[in-house]
Amino acid sequence: MNRVLEDVIHKNVANTERITAENTVGYVVSDNASGSVAATSFDNTTAQGIVKHMNGLLVGLVQSAVRDLDPTNKLCYLRVASRKFEYLVAPEDMFTITVLQ
Amino acid sequence: MNRVLEDVIHKNVANTERITAENTVGYVVSDNASGSVAATSFDNTTAQGIVKHMNGLLVGLVQSAVRDLDPTNKLCYLRVASRKFEYLVAPEDMFTITVLQ
Repeated sequence: MNRVLEDVIHKNVANTERITAENTVGYVVSDNASGSVAATSFDNTTAQGIVKHMNGLLVGLVQSAVRDLDPTNKLCYLRVASRKFEYLVAPEDMFTITVLQ
Repeated sequence: MNRVLEDVIHKNVANTERITAENTVGYVVSDNASGSVAATSFDNTTAQGIVKHMNGLLVGLVQSAVRDLDPTNKLCYLRVASRKFEYLVAPEDMFTITVLQ
C-alpha cells in the first residue's frame, strides 16, 4: 500500500475509531491509484464491493457530471441515502473514504 | 406533460415556493418517462443540463450501484456536495426533483 496513505491512516486511527464508535455501520478507505481496500471495518468481500461500486465507478461518474454542468466546479462529497443506510463518500486526491451510517 | 404529474406540481405550488424562498439556488422537476423538464425556477438550458446529467444519467447509475451492493435495498435520495453548491436529488416513481442549495 502507498506509504503516504499508510501514514495518513495510521495518524487518523483515533479519529476513525471515534467516528465508527458512534452510530456507524462501518467504513472503507480505498487507495485511488490501485483501487484496493486500504483500511476497513467490514469483511473483505463487502469492502471490495463498496470500493468497486461506490468509491471507484460512482465517484468518477459524479465528478464528471458535476464538471459537465460547470467546468469550474468540483465534487466535494456524495451522500447516497438508501432505504437501509446512507453511504457518505468523500473522495480525496489519493484515497476515498466511504462511511455507512 | 403527464396529467398526474401536472396535478402533483399544481397541488405543491405553495410548498415549492416555500422551499425555494429559503436559501435555495433553484429547483428542477423532470418527468421520468419523457426525461423532459416539467417545472423549474432556472432558465431552460440550465434546467435541461441538470435533468440530463443529474436526474437522468446519474440517478439511474446510483440506483443500480445501490442494488448491485444489496438487491433488497433501494435508493431514496442523493446529495452531491460540490464546491459551489449542493444538488439534492429525490427520485420518485414518475418524476425526479432536484433542488440546488
